[in-house]
Amino acid sequence: MPQLGLGTWKIDKRTCAEVIVTAAKAGYRHFDCACDYGNEAEVGQGLRRIVEEGIAARDELWITSKLWNTYHAAEHVQPACEKTLSDLGLDYVDLYLIHFPIALKFVPFADRYPPEWFYDPSAKEPGLVSEPIPIRETWEAMEKLVDAGLAKNIGVCNFGVSLIRDLLSCARIRPSVLQVELHPLLTQEKLLRYCAAEQIAVTAFSSFGAESYYALGMAQPTESLLKHDVVSTIAAACDKSPAQVLLRWAVQRGTIVIPKASSQAHLEQNAAIFDFELTAEQMAQLSALNSGRRFNDPGDFCEAAFNTFFPIYE
Amino acid sequence: MPQLGLGTWKIDKRTCAEVIVTAAKAGYRHFDCACDYGNEAEVGQGLRRIVEEGIAARDELWITSKLWNTYHAAEHVQPACEKTLSDLGLDYVDLYLIHFPIALKFVPFADRYPPEWFYDPSAKEPGLVSEPIPIRETWEAMEKLVDAGLAKNIGVCNFGVSLIRDLLSCARIRPSVLQVELHPLLTQEKLLRYCAAEQIAVTAFSSFGAESYYALGMAQPTESLLKHDVVSTIAAACDKSPAQVLLRWAVQRGTIVIPKASSQAHLEQNAAIFDFELTAEQMAQLSALNSGRRFNDPGDFCEAAFNTFFPIYE
Repeated sequence: MPQLGLGTWKIDKRTCAEVIVTAAKAGYRHFDCACDYGNEAEVGQGLRRIVEEGIAARDELWITSKLWNTYHAAEHVQPACEKTLSDLGLDYVDLYLIHFPIALKFVPFADRYPPEWFYDPSAKEPGLVSEPIPIRETWEAMEKLVDAGLAKNIGVCNFGVSLIRDLLSCARIRPSVLQVELHPLLTQEKLLRYCAAEQIAVTAFSSFGAESYYALGMAQPTESLLKHDVVSTIAAACDKSPAQVLLRWAVQRGTIVIPKASSQAHLEQNAAIFDFELTAEQMAQLSALNSGRRFNDPGDFCEAAFNTFFPIYE
Repeated sequence: MPQLGLGTWKIDKRTCAEVIVTAAKAGYRHFDCACDYGNEAEVGQGLRRIVEEGIAARDELWITSKLWNTYHAAEHVQPACEKTLSDLGLDYVDLYLIHFPIALKFVPFADRYPPEWFYDPSAKEPGLVSEPIPIRETWEAMEKLVDAGLAKNIGVCNFGVSLIRDLLSCARIRPSVLQVELHPLLTQEKLLRYCAAEQIAVTAFSSFGAESYYALGMAQPTESLLKHDVVSTIAAACDKSPAQVLLRWAVQRGTIVIPKASSQAHLEQNAAIFDFELTAEQMAQLSALNSGRRFNDPGDFCEAAFNTFFPIYE
């Protein structure tokens, strides 16, 4: 699994295929996708061009996608994966992840796809409709995707150690990867250490911290890591950008990074993180920024946006 | 379930029965016990005297006990509960809780009881020996205790929202109670709110914060809540002790408290928390002390004491 991937959350549909091809030309071989990002068909167009134009063969690519919350019931997991595969134009994904430990009411593809954080519009009050589906049920269906050859690996996102341990206690096929929010304000050392001990690879999302969350009203400009003094000082010392320092910190911790970028310049900048090293002191200075600040917390945003209190981390 | 109980962790075996009787005379009807506390036989002697001396009848008492980590396998749950009942001299407990979301290797009663955080002495290196037992398996065995009349209610300790939600998705008998560490340095508002929404009562342990953890090397004297300025100032304003303020804060949040005390004076002091009220501002001042500080974290103490990294909260 390449340690650098392209995150496709928020890549505009109109330019998405082009971005994917540009990324591949810049050396990206790993693409992090999800039903929920709403652009898998466009990512798929890009992937097709990558192969057709001979930039890379399918087996040189690592494609990740994610099972959305509305498809946790056993009978919906394979259709959801197949829909993603159809959109991506693939026979298999290299990795398929449970997107959240959150099971919501099923929404048929024809009614709304992707369903997002859908709630029943016929209900009196807006609100998410959760479903009591055990994680074990969803996982057993995920395992069958591996049996069927639709996913080479399976894993989870946004799980904590206790959920992972309980999953491991009954998994026939172990999770290969955990994807979680990680940056110097949320270092989660125990979680990383636990995953290392269990040989679960960890992908860091939101490596730049607040950046993706300003527009959603989920972060304040004062929380920027890209403009943080400690990050800027280290960046100047390394003759790199703050973004590169944040990504380097992550890969040097052994995590996989999946920064989003749309322009060729940004794609190349994010990829240029393997030609320098942070000192132990610089690593420690960055990690010391940890304040447990989580930007992507359903316990906050589901209430703000969907009138539903849905904590998962406390 | 009485909102005030007597916590029996660390009550000395030699005086335990007497303390239990003194507590009952002081009005206590709720006793929080556990296999792991190593004093259930002595608690049982006290309970017998309470009934024999006519202080209270069995059905006026609320007795809680807890399943230890070494008994999570389906076949060990009922024997463990029966051992506790035998020690306590009871036909049933009012509440039986899973003590931790941690399953360790079984230790026969005859080998060591309570087994504590036992590790295999024949192993090369000291270390806890965990067992891959799904929480669901343990819970189904807990449900059978209710069927058998051995426990009136069942619940969990030290679970977070995602573990509870997953448990609720498959529970035939829902957990009645969650017992977790709660004090002004660890307010866990989302967890409380989630439990309220799910109609799960919450028992706060370690209401005084650091107090139980100094001797174990798990807290620093500077972390004392009993000596904290904010607590002391409020205590002076209310003409109450800091301990009473901390307990009052907890009961006013709707949680159940189980402070430990051994002397009649302390027992009475801890019980005198229903004759005054903290103002909204005082409640807010106390809650504002929250720093997420958890004293009872296996992710820390298992490593220090047992050479095993065993995080459960991250």
